[in-house]
Amino acid sequence: MSAAPTLQSFIAGRWIGQHGATPLRSALDGHIIGYSHEERPDFAEAIEHARAQGLQALMAMDFQQRAARLKALALYLSERKEQLYALSHHSGATRADSWIDIEGGNATLFAYAGIGARELPSGNIFHEGPAIPLGKQGSFVGSHILVPRAGLAVHINAFNFPIWGMLEKFTPTFLAGMPCIIKPATATSYLTEAVVRLMAQSGLLPAGSLQLVIGSTGDLLDRLQGQDLVTFTGSADTAAKLRVTPNLIRHSVPFSAEADSLNCAILGPDVKPGDPAFELYIKEVVREMTTKAGQKCTAIRRAIVPARHIDAVASALRERLSQVVVGDPSIEGVRMGALASHEQQRDVGERLHSLLQSCEQLFGASDGFAPRGEGVSEGAFFAPTLLQARDPHAEGGAHDIEAFGPVSTLMAYDDLDEALALAARGKGSLVASLVTCDRQVAAKVIPVAAAWHGRLLILDPQAAPESTGHGSPLPQLKHGGPGRAGGGEELGGLRAVKHYLQRAAIQGSPSMLTAVTGEYVRGAEVIETEAHPFRRYFQDLRIGESLLTHRRTVTEADLVNFGCLSGDHFYMHFDEIAARDSQFGKRIAHGYFVLSAAAGLFVSAAPGPVLANYGLDTLRFINPVGIGDTIQARLTCKRKIDQGKSSPQGIPQGVVAWDVEVTNQLGELVASYDILTLVVKREVSPVAT
Amino acid sequence: MSAAPTLQSFIAGRWIGQHGATPLRSALDGHIIGYSHEERPDFAEAIEHARAQGLQALMAMDFQQRAARLKALALYLSERKEQLYALSHHSGATRADSWIDIEGGNATLFAYAGIGARELPSGNIFHEGPAIPLGKQGSFVGSHILVPRAGLAVHINAFNFPIWGMLEKFTPTFLAGMPCIIKPATATSYLTEAVVRLMAQSGLLPAGSLQLVIGSTGDLLDRLQGQDLVTFTGSADTAAKLRVTPNLIRHSVPFSAEADSLNCAILGPDVKPGDPAFELYIKEVVREMTTKAGQKCTAIRRAIVPARHIDAVASALRERLSQVVVGDPSIEGVRMGALASHEQQRDVGERLHSLLQSCEQLFGASDGFAPRGEGVSEGAFFAPTLLQARDPHAEGGAHDIEAFGPVSTLMAYDDLDEALALAARGKGSLVASLVTCDRQVAAKVIPVAAAWHGRLLILDPQAAPESTGHGSPLPQLKHGGPGRAGGGEELGGLRAVKHYLQRAAIQGSPSMLTAVTGEYVRGAEVIETEAHPFRRYFQDLRIGESLLTHRRTVTEADLVNFGCLSGDHFYMHFDEIAARDSQFGKRIAHGYFVLSAAAGLFVSAAPGPVLANYGLDTLRFINPVGIGDTIQARLTCKRKIDQGKSSPQGIPQGVVAWDVEVTNQLGELVASYDILTLVVKREVSPVAT
Repeated sequence: MSAAPTLQSFIAGRWIGQHGATPLRSALDGHIIGYSHEERPDFAEAIEHARAQGLQALMAMDFQQRAARLKALALYLSERKEQLYALSHHSGATRADSWIDIEGGNATLFAYAGIGARELPSGNIFHEGPAIPLGKQGSFVGSHILVPRAGLAVHINAFNFPIWGMLEKFTPTFLAGMPCIIKPATATSYLTEAVVRLMAQSGLLPAGSLQLVIGSTGDLLDRLQGQDLVTFTGSADTAAKLRVTPNLIRHSVPFSAEADSLNCAILGPDVKPGDPAFELYIKEVVREMTTKAGQKCTAIRRAIVPARHIDAVASALRERLSQVVVGDPSIEGVRMGALASHEQQRDVGERLHSLLQSCEQLFGASDGFAPRGEGVSEGAFFAPTLLQARDPHAEGGAHDIEAFGPVSTLMAYDDLDEALALAARGKGSLVASLVTCDRQVAAKVIPVAAAWHGRLLILDPQAAPESTGHGSPLPQLKHGGPGRAGGGEELGGLRAVKHYLQRAAIQGSPSMLTAVTGEYVRGAEVIETEAHPFRRYFQDLRIGESLLTHRRTVTEADLVNFGCLSGDHFYMHFDEIAARDSQFGKRIAHGYFVLSAAAGLFVSAAPGPVLANYGLDTLRFINPVGIGDTIQARLTCKRKIDQGKSSPQGIPQGVVAWDVEVTNQLGELVASYDILTLVVKREVSPVAT
Repeated sequence: MSAAPTLQSFIAGRWIGQHGATPLRSALDGHIIGYSHEERPDFAEAIEHARAQGLQALMAMDFQQRAARLKALALYLSERKEQLYALSHHSGATRADSWIDIEGGNATLFAYAGIGARELPSGNIFHEGPAIPLGKQGSFVGSHILVPRAGLAVHINAFNFPIWGMLEKFTPTFLAGMPCIIKPATATSYLTEAVVRLMAQSGLLPAGSLQLVIGSTGDLLDRLQGQDLVTFTGSADTAAKLRVTPNLIRHSVPFSAEADSLNCAILGPDVKPGDPAFELYIKEVVREMTTKAGQKCTAIRRAIVPARHIDAVASALRERLSQVVVGDPSIEGVRMGALASHEQQRDVGERLHSLLQSCEQLFGASDGFAPRGEGVSEGAFFAPTLLQARDPHAEGGAHDIEAFGPVSTLMAYDDLDEALALAARGKGSLVASLVTCDRQVAAKVIPVAAAWHGRLLILDPQAAPESTGHGSPLPQLKHGGPGRAGGGEELGGLRAVKHYLQRAAIQGSPSMLTAVTGEYVRGAEVIETEAHPFRRYFQDLRIGESLLTHRRTVTEADLVNFGCLSGDHFYMHFDEIAARDSQFGKRIAHGYFVLSAAAGLFVSAAPGPVLANYGLDTLRFINPVGIGDTIQARLTCKRKIDQGKSSPQGIPQGVVAWDVEVTNQLGELVASYDILTLVVKREVSPVAT
């Protein structure tokens, strides 16, 4: 970056900002790499754009289509990631640090593309269920749906992960069908701007689905309404200030915060110096102190270790820290870069000063700290610093002061209860680790610690080779913790999408609930066609299409043959004497025979659109089937999901779930379940049915 | 109530309050029925009592035991409910109104006793799952657990449902293992005090699990911490004020609000005067206006009807309202009682005055309003009042002003889009109803309205006989709505319990996650005993006990026999030609044969502790089984739930879920599922195993 550009906001489809304002400086050597812009975006226009164009464009797609779009975006960004790496080192990040931000962000896109395809329906209504009869006749049923909130999300991000932080919030929001306005921290906003530019250039972003604010949010929060929401990642103080914005309070606008917190790592009482697990602990603490120069909300700030091993831990950490080469990440061998800005450098210095009131310094700037590279004296470097709490129970020290840099504090415990009490003194954090090889220790620590920490890593030599580490939030796992960590939840697989949807309870007749949810609700009117439902193509099948099969009388010969074929000679089917004393008072048919016979009743033998029955859910055997009972099945098309996929042979297909009820001659339900099938799409244009 | 008593707070196990302060008056005739007390409770002591005794006592029980305790409490209160009815009419409630409060509250206790027994595990860790491999080798797995929050709940309630309001909050809190402090609205706190006295007398409440505050909460909220939480039911203004309590913000204390809102009922465009559905609409609106004298957060405040039918609706409502007898509910024939206090009476009068700026009055006090009974002139009666909005789109009228009494406003719409726009003008509400017989109307309205209203009732003649009505929250269904309704969620079955638990992501080796969750996580070490696991009693079975079965080679004869026995002659199993062209390129075994053969591999034929396999979950056929393939099953004890129940024969038993993996000769997974069994408990004392 030779000529420092003015960064631009992306508002209402236009890039705004010609006149430079605040300079943004490289963390490595202090040179100016860009300016925020002077022009103030019109937030009324931005909001109107999101509500009109954004919502409309997103609602013109469905969950499955948005998931597919995320996948396309992920592929597009993958191919252009080196552009981002080229910028990222200005933030003080090593290649490994940037990898977390860039590849981690893209992995989140890929992960949610998969989660969306696998776990979300076609359409824009998520039928959460379960449908519950609210009366004895079954004419009035209740259930739950989740729908897009019909509002927009404002995402306010921290400086430390300008790409991942944006993408991990954008992705589930987009999947849920909600436009968003992203406001990155100004210091590293050039990276967020770069990735938003790529996304806009891709042509894959529906108009209005993503807007970007470089600089202040002005009156943006004052313009939100009850359908909108705000997420915030950053300091607890700023979270507290924004959370009480009168307009947000007035409209009950959800505000989800993820704040820096005093995460800890506990060394189990069973682990001794020299154990492989001891080495794992040392590595993990040093990695968390130095990755991203300790500027991670999840970094280990407190290392809680058995008193009898604290000297060994201190010495091992000191040795390892002394090997960490700090400097310009472009230099071979450099393992830790700079803090993101001089402001951060000052701030961490001040916090360290406060911590030193109650802690000894075991390792720090005086231990030969000399960052490598040209111009680094103008950079925002900070020495890895290890402290030890004089009194681990003291107020106002390492349990309360967070230095958002490569600073951690050792504290000693005598027994596990004390370790747990010390961990809880952080008043809530994003993550805690426990290094132990003793399952009883894990079983004691984790359920207690789970009330205080959003994520818990149990590390031992078995888990270590595949461990993703203390500091890494993953798309599949919840990110966010109680108390000091802000009380919010992000990620966590489908949970994150649900945070951007609105849940409503629905009540009505089964037929009405079927019409609303697009899923067959038991008790609804069914559609009986002349064609067997298994002979209908994906597009032609309607929800509620149903087959009431012919009947079959279950005979003693069936039991005998089924037992001999399966090898299942359970007394309930074969021992007249024991069966008489059993709960049913007689021999009954095998449950799996009932299931198999039901399949025999509704199968359509010739090749047809139904390719395979690949699964079965929630099977319950409700009533026993005795010898002489006559069974019958009803098979009803329950749910259709079009993932836009094809079979390995290239035949376009969709998922169809079928409701199955097997009844006896008295009309009593004997078995109830869903079966999952793949159904081929007709290639010619649909015919009216 | 002849001598007006001083009501008492229940703090730290003692009833506090000797000296009367504010008088509480009967809503019917104004006589004093009690006094709040002058003594200020020591909230530090209350909190300490909850944290120490309360938490400890609740954690000494598990989810299943607390569910059983709720059932016992429900039975205890059922037998004493007439004591509550005797008091309840002072609040102005009719017997039917009191039924909602008293029986509705008790029904919530019963419902959550059932939900807890059916849906919660033994122990105090809810393994929410799913366990997800985080690496390719399966040595590192992630999952989610929910644990008790290790804090206390403060529940602040409204005056209108002093019993239900307390119980619907207490019940899931108790089930989750969280002590609570209840603060009812002072005006009707004599009813909450009465039911808390009964609960305390029952001996069923663990010490510290429930405390009661009559009067002000003083500095209670200023003493809470991050593990605690606050729920609030009442006006949006008070919610907004309490939500920004600095101490709550500082510690990210969750604050869930359920506020009065401008609920609506839409008459579908398909319904004409004279239709049965038209009659349903009229009845529902009048019922919601007059039940509890309209003092329900869920009451219909806006009746949105087709313009062409608005006169017919107005005339039908007027006629029905003129038949509503208002007065002392103890008088035969009285259908509507008084508002809860003179303060409410004044307040509703003022709001009505404001509404009349933009509305016409179609029915009200001038239409022969004369409450029946002695002393009613001193009571807080209010005439059922029907308005019509002059301009339904006007600002500051019926979409914005809530008269919390028997007051509703009619507004006309031309088409469904306009009806939806008017409904949304309430800026979020607890509930909306739609009366329609047209499923397309429901399918259009409900998904849009679901973003704005917490619950949606679709009423038609089919649903009507069992409908629980517009105004009734149910334990199974979510209660709470976005925006003006406060943005909170209560009830909704298990969801409510989860609100009082803390979710944590956990990561580690499968064996560690098994130790922590108390559930077998695939990949964990298994325990192979000499005894077949199906021959072990409930108490003796350990999580992870496992059987690797003998093998079985699947032959062509198996396919033939299974097809003939089941009747399933699908081409994939029987048609060499079509199967060759199919995705698998050859004939394969029936999935249900694999399932049946697996059961044959692991069954233990003689009578034993395993009584029945009553269900199966999440079956997936992963790989096909061809002729000549050899299958083998692994059956592993996954989860044990002790509901404290017995079989119909009186034999104590528990639920055991088993993980089943069926593999082929290459070690590939061919089928994967859980089976559910009932397993007998050994009657003699346990032996070490």
